[in-house]
Amino acid sequence: MLENKKRVYRFGARKAEGDGSKRELLGGKGANLAEMSRLGMPVPAGFTITTECCAEYYELGGGYSEYLKKEVAEALADTEKLMGKKFGDPKDPLLVSCRSGARSSMPGMMDTILNIGLCSATIPGMIEKTGNPRFVYDAYRRLIMMYSDVVMEKAEGIEPADGQGIRQQLDRMMDEVKKAKGYKSDTELSAEELKELCDRFKVKVKEVLGEEFPDTAEAQLWGSIGGVFKSWNGKRAIAYRRIEKIPDDWGTAVNVQSMVFGNMGETSATGVAFSRNPANGDNRFYGEWLINAQGEDVVAGIRTPNPLNDATKTEHNRHLPSLEAAMPDVYKELDEIRTRLENHFHDMQDIEFTIQEGKLWMLQCRIGKRTGLAALQMAMDMLGEGMIDEKTAVLRVSPSQLDEILHPVLDPASEKKATALAVGLPASPGGAVGTIVFTPEEAMAAAARGEKTILLREETSPEDIEGMRAASGILTARGGMTSHAALVARGWGKCCIVGCDALKIDFGKKTVTLGNTTLKAGDWMSLNGAKGLVYGVKIDTMDASENPLFVNFMTIVDKYRRMGIRTNADTPEDALRALKFGAEGIGLFRIEHMFYGKNSEVPLAKLRKMIMSRTDEERKAALDELEPFIKASVKSTLKIMDGKPVVFRLLDPPLHEFVPKSEDKREELARELGISVAEVDKRGENLHEVNPMMGHRGVRLHVTYPLIAETQYRAIFTATAELMKEGFNPIPEIMIPVTISAREIEFQKLHCEKIRLEVEAHEHLSIKYRFGTMIEIPRAALTADRMARTAEFFSFGTNDLTQMTFGFSRDDVGTFMGDYLGNKILDADPFQTIDVKGVGKLVETGVQGGRSKRADLKCGICGEHGGDPDSIMFFNKIGIDYVSCSPFRVPIARLAAAHASINQNR
Amino acid sequence: MLENKKRVYRFGARKAEGDGSKRELLGGKGANLAEMSRLGMPVPAGFTITTECCAEYYELGGGYSEYLKKEVAEALADTEKLMGKKFGDPKDPLLVSCRSGARSSMPGMMDTILNIGLCSATIPGMIEKTGNPRFVYDAYRRLIMMYSDVVMEKAEGIEPADGQGIRQQLDRMMDEVKKAKGYKSDTELSAEELKELCDRFKVKVKEVLGEEFPDTAEAQLWGSIGGVFKSWNGKRAIAYRRIEKIPDDWGTAVNVQSMVFGNMGETSATGVAFSRNPANGDNRFYGEWLINAQGEDVVAGIRTPNPLNDATKTEHNRHLPSLEAAMPDVYKELDEIRTRLENHFHDMQDIEFTIQEGKLWMLQCRIGKRTGLAALQMAMDMLGEGMIDEKTAVLRVSPSQLDEILHPVLDPASEKKATALAVGLPASPGGAVGTIVFTPEEAMAAAARGEKTILLREETSPEDIEGMRAASGILTARGGMTSHAALVARGWGKCCIVGCDALKIDFGKKTVTLGNTTLKAGDWMSLNGAKGLVYGVKIDTMDASENPLFVNFMTIVDKYRRMGIRTNADTPEDALRALKFGAEGIGLFRIEHMFYGKNSEVPLAKLRKMIMSRTDEERKAALDELEPFIKASVKSTLKIMDGKPVVFRLLDPPLHEFVPKSEDKREELARELGISVAEVDKRGENLHEVNPMMGHRGVRLHVTYPLIAETQYRAIFTATAELMKEGFNPIPEIMIPVTISAREIEFQKLHCEKIRLEVEAHEHLSIKYRFGTMIEIPRAALTADRMARTAEFFSFGTNDLTQMTFGFSRDDVGTFMGDYLGNKILDADPFQTIDVKGVGKLVETGVQGGRSKRADLKCGICGEHGGDPDSIMFFNKIGIDYVSCSPFRVPIARLAAAHASINQNR
Repeated sequence: MLENKKRVYRFGARKAEGDGSKRELLGGKGANLAEMSRLGMPVPAGFTITTECCAEYYELGGGYSEYLKKEVAEALADTEKLMGKKFGDPKDPLLVSCRSGARSSMPGMMDTILNIGLCSATIPGMIEKTGNPRFVYDAYRRLIMMYSDVVMEKAEGIEPADGQGIRQQLDRMMDEVKKAKGYKSDTELSAEELKELCDRFKVKVKEVLGEEFPDTAEAQLWGSIGGVFKSWNGKRAIAYRRIEKIPDDWGTAVNVQSMVFGNMGETSATGVAFSRNPANGDNRFYGEWLINAQGEDVVAGIRTPNPLNDATKTEHNRHLPSLEAAMPDVYKELDEIRTRLENHFHDMQDIEFTIQEGKLWMLQCRIGKRTGLAALQMAMDMLGEGMIDEKTAVLRVSPSQLDEILHPVLDPASEKKATALAVGLPASPGGAVGTIVFTPEEAMAAAARGEKTILLREETSPEDIEGMRAASGILTARGGMTSHAALVARGWGKCCIVGCDALKIDFGKKTVTLGNTTLKAGDWMSLNGAKGLVYGVKIDTMDASENPLFVNFMTIVDKYRRMGIRTNADTPEDALRALKFGAEGIGLFRIEHMFYGKNSEVPLAKLRKMIMSRTDEERKAALDELEPFIKASVKSTLKIMDGKPVVFRLLDPPLHEFVPKSEDKREELARELGISVAEVDKRGENLHEVNPMMGHRGVRLHVTYPLIAETQYRAIFTATAELMKEGFNPIPEIMIPVTISAREIEFQKLHCEKIRLEVEAHEHLSIKYRFGTMIEIPRAALTADRMARTAEFFSFGTNDLTQMTFGFSRDDVGTFMGDYLGNKILDADPFQTIDVKGVGKLVETGVQGGRSKRADLKCGICGEHGGDPDSIMFFNKIGIDYVSCSPFRVPIARLAAAHASINQNR
Repeated sequence: MLENKKRVYRFGARKAEGDGSKRELLGGKGANLAEMSRLGMPVPAGFTITTECCAEYYELGGGYSEYLKKEVAEALADTEKLMGKKFGDPKDPLLVSCRSGARSSMPGMMDTILNIGLCSATIPGMIEKTGNPRFVYDAYRRLIMMYSDVVMEKAEGIEPADGQGIRQQLDRMMDEVKKAKGYKSDTELSAEELKELCDRFKVKVKEVLGEEFPDTAEAQLWGSIGGVFKSWNGKRAIAYRRIEKIPDDWGTAVNVQSMVFGNMGETSATGVAFSRNPANGDNRFYGEWLINAQGEDVVAGIRTPNPLNDATKTEHNRHLPSLEAAMPDVYKELDEIRTRLENHFHDMQDIEFTIQEGKLWMLQCRIGKRTGLAALQMAMDMLGEGMIDEKTAVLRVSPSQLDEILHPVLDPASEKKATALAVGLPASPGGAVGTIVFTPEEAMAAAARGEKTILLREETSPEDIEGMRAASGILTARGGMTSHAALVARGWGKCCIVGCDALKIDFGKKTVTLGNTTLKAGDWMSLNGAKGLVYGVKIDTMDASENPLFVNFMTIVDKYRRMGIRTNADTPEDALRALKFGAEGIGLFRIEHMFYGKNSEVPLAKLRKMIMSRTDEERKAALDELEPFIKASVKSTLKIMDGKPVVFRLLDPPLHEFVPKSEDKREELARELGISVAEVDKRGENLHEVNPMMGHRGVRLHVTYPLIAETQYRAIFTATAELMKEGFNPIPEIMIPVTISAREIEFQKLHCEKIRLEVEAHEHLSIKYRFGTMIEIPRAALTADRMARTAEFFSFGTNDLTQMTFGFSRDDVGTFMGDYLGNKILDADPFQTIDVKGVGKLVETGVQGGRSKRADLKCGICGEHGGDPDSIMFFNKIGIDYVSCSPFRVPIARLAAAHASINQNR
């Protein structure tokens, strides 16, 4: 209970008890109504019931405290005084609206009731006063439709069958009348027809919902207030909050406001406007309006609205009258308000207005939603205009908006016309269009012919890499957000959808079935990677990354971040690309990745030979052949990154993946090793593991075969020495994967130092490097204090750490992740956004443990989370020094890091 | 550096600077020599160099501080004064021994050098003084043999080829002389022959080791001290410490003591005795002695020793003279010392003595090793005698000794039918059956294959340790009850027979002849360790838990433990067995285990059908058929455990394991499901997972298919209701496996409550149960506070928790665990003994987190660690309420829990 806390805040007549700072208490709409009123703008009088009353309402089991009743009565009296009418007055009744308003905008998710106060006692006086019976009955039928829907049906938790909602039933009744009369528009209905419809509406309401439609102003008002409170826990609202991560306990405020009418004839109107163009950011007033209409008509899209002004005209609406031309004075007043609002709020405003018999009324203002492109344009414009400072400009573009700018996407207009055949996991955003192929080879062949393809696979494996690169988009039936396909595609910034259960591929017939549709190789397919939508048609794409503002914006961004941004790159090409995107070093160079992709045939054969060796002699011979390839790859990367650190992670190959499958490769390997194919097969079988993710990998391999580690150390140190002699400044950092114990690191350091001394003696120079470890197994995080005695840096491998902490296999999680997200067991896919409570706690434990022994311990992140804005926020908070992500996500990580710093310092 | 800390502690002439409480500083031997001296017993004078000097020795790179040199000189002077002789004196030289002595006894693992001080300068005076040149040269050849072996070879890290050790070479030289002369015993060698042998020995030493044998008393003394220090890091010592879990940094003390001689003729002797029988615990003085011999002769088992007294006589040695009969006065003095030592130390003592020309000298006393059976007998006897209190009695039997008691013996009925081929000394009781192996390596190889072996040796040496451990039983041709094999096997509770003269081994042919029977490697052999009987056939074994003392002892044990002991049981038979062993409930009933083993054919087919279902209808049908089987199994278990809690863990089947492999089973399943075999195969393939351990298992399955969980809830509640109606008191506890989030538990609780209400309504009664969760995934432990909001109990599944925390797949860890233990990266296998630093930290976090939200949260352990004594100690410390283990380990867990409580409260 709130006891004697203030529950109701009044506004109107250029004054208000609340103001724009009270969003938490008054909701966004209420706070802004108060603020506009204080700014002297024409706001119809009314009052806001605080969000705290929403909780109180639920606490009281759906009731109102005496305190609230008293305050509402007092505020209503004030409103009546300001408007010169009385609520429920038979002669000249005041009508009010009742609208929800949460702290954070939830457009279309919550409810509104208009025209409250119309009942058998007030209708005659209202008709007399307005002299417009048609207007009154139209208002009354709207009240019945909204109230029965919001208050009597939804708020009561009634769930009608599809199409049997009361609102739909009433709509159909009205349509039937219009049809019978041959009317095209609602406005053609006469007063008499509307009156009769209202009577029939009330009968229908009683019939369907079992309750009489309330016939006093008082009952309608309190019913509406309760309906708004209940709408907070409506299905739509809950679903929306889940998506937008809005806490359930915020509650909604209720705004009770005097009605003004845009539907009182040809000098009345209603409209919605943006202070700048929300699609492209142009600094021009932009909006739509309808004559003789109520607000909901514009939002609902029932009638095609008119353009606000010349600047808003398009080819679709240039024949329609603009407000600028139709009501120049009102337009001028509105345009002035637009300027004052922007100067006051320092941001683009989304406003709702009504014109009643030539007089402008402001019903709402709020910060307007916008596209990524518009966000960037507005941020830079407003910075230039001196309206905002640099930090604010940085915060004005969200990382997902930046992501949007950097990816080609399906053209929304074109996408709207198509119907999605299936939905999968949105593994890598952007849009892709191409013809269907079922094998990597076909994708490569098509690419060679300059054709775009979509590669369809059950799931992908490293052998598919070339084909994946060649395809425009990738679609798989299995796998989760961090499956092979997802990881690789995201790394390349290529559109990818995974775990699409509906996909039934017949590789023999080269067909794919999605629900009732069967497509064949060569048919067109389009993917919306941001939403996981699959289309069986060709949809246009658009590219938005060419914006010249981008570079300027990123320069400002970099001034405000604390964390460094590195990249995960395994090839010179990736390194170059990442440098272009602003990477300050390589946080993860996976030595085994040189065996994937093009030009890898020779080293891959050597690696296979090494893996399949049985004796130290065989292994040594294979490693000696492998070393020059590793050295060359290391050297070219260090050269590109001259003067910037490069973290080389020792080999962590999933051994069995490197066992050759094809006949000729097995024969080749048998020849190389001088053994039979049967022996090759036998050795391959021995490498099979039940749970390879928790098997003989990472440092475990190097503990068993120290030679493998030594070869890599030698390659790295030799490459470093050669570059030093050539005048470069290589900064190698060596990292041990999959460690679980400090002694593994000590053990490896001994081998590493031995090789360093050998190379130094041979090359006659002294080599500097850092020696560190991955923290990717829970035990490593738990024993980080010991680890930091030898390790000079930590890099948290949050992918594997998430796997082990959850016991979720990345490759298998697809079978149940959907159920976990769908049942709200998990709020987000932990492979996408760091799980703060579990994995995050381990990362924090690791950082603190490590720094307790080594105060200057450098801590980085090299999992997928290094490119995820929410995760970056957390990493910034716990003192991570840098994140490393795929080249394409570097700009996003830079922006997210800046946001994190700015927000944390506030 | 120790600076001016005291380094040397003197003893002798019924006084001592140290005492029995200084084990850490003086080692066990040194502390007890000081204590015996203080007790007024005849101890040859000498001094102990502290264990701290061992570390100092290594710190100084193998050197001695000036402080140490000074203190040794002073202590030696005192010893000389007490013994009336001077070290290095040409006329009447003092000889000393130099022995190692760690805190904890390490029998045969470390080294001793006797007769130090004999050199060309002192030999003539010694001969003159003793008038016994044969004695002097025999002592000298022993010095050369021990010193060259311990100090000049082993301590220098020289690793000779097999059979080429200096000691073996010198042994062969002596054997050749004896053979040439036709001597059978060493004592037949004349003074002249020994003198010549000593000269040839010294030449050989120079030739083999490249150094002159030292010819001054001083050089010999310091060489010996260093040799003892170095022996601490000898291979044998390190291997022993690894097995016994003795820390590497304890170090050894060095005891320098005046020599007394048991080999000065027929009135001299040496012996080893136990104050009670170490094999069966009888309260009778027990021992062996040899006339005219030095101590090493008894221990080495070269000569068959005489019985100490009548009580010690067996059929093998009853013809030999007892000390009791041969030297009654000395025996009486020794027997009085035995009583005083037991009354002083309140425990069975293992003593070494020497009789020099009729005078008794005490060389050592220590707490004697014993078999499990003896430990139990002695604990209960001493408790009865009022020598110790109950808590001490409980601590006197270690969990591993109890394990030994519970280990099998030969089944008398089966043994009766066989004929013993030979009789040896019953060195360590119990029964062993296995195939014959002749080398430790073979024993280890067979153990790795899971095969049981009997290891046959002439006699064992410390180098055989690993193989001895791997064998099921040990049989030697030579040695007495205190030989190396006997001591080691007894320590482990492993069946062992020694001194079996009839055994003729041909190591070349790998055959063994016992009387007229010749067996070869791989043939079956059975040993009765309690009677010393050897059989050449395979005999059945049975367990020995029927001992009446056992029940009494366990009653006392249960008075002192805090933790409850439950069992992991999945069948009524297991439950019954565990009840017999004292289980207080079932901590883990795995519902899927009813599908393993006998009588599982029908339910297994139903389970397969359920797993391979595609639609809810198919699944529902299969579950309906499955439910009666689950209910029957649940009901019979609850009935057996009447009044005791039973934790039912929901199905956690590795899905793919239940996919039928054989043709007929696949056909059967296809028929059952009404689909084709090809479809069965396809569905099976869909269940394949890359990492099944982290796949769609445990609660994840129930999230996807709530029907599966509901069937189990219904079976459990129906079984409970039926038993209640039959007058039983069932206490079901329902446990959710593989949870990672509190919401999984909330979600399951909803389903569970729904079914409970249904069953209650149907059965017209009210059912009580507890609802809890496994904590077996790191995230569960990290978010335990939230879990405890719904979960009423936690059970830590430390097996899986270890897998995830380490990222070690149990199924695959074999490929590298050996490297991890061998390289000392891990001290112990974490699947055997809880990893306190990592997994243990998570368990503790889980307990604390859970109790922060629910103070009375019950916390149990149901992994393998629940039966491991070291782990139980840790669980007791962190406040675990109960452990659950396999039925056979219940008594061991009860004892370990009592030890933990008693030790923790001290």
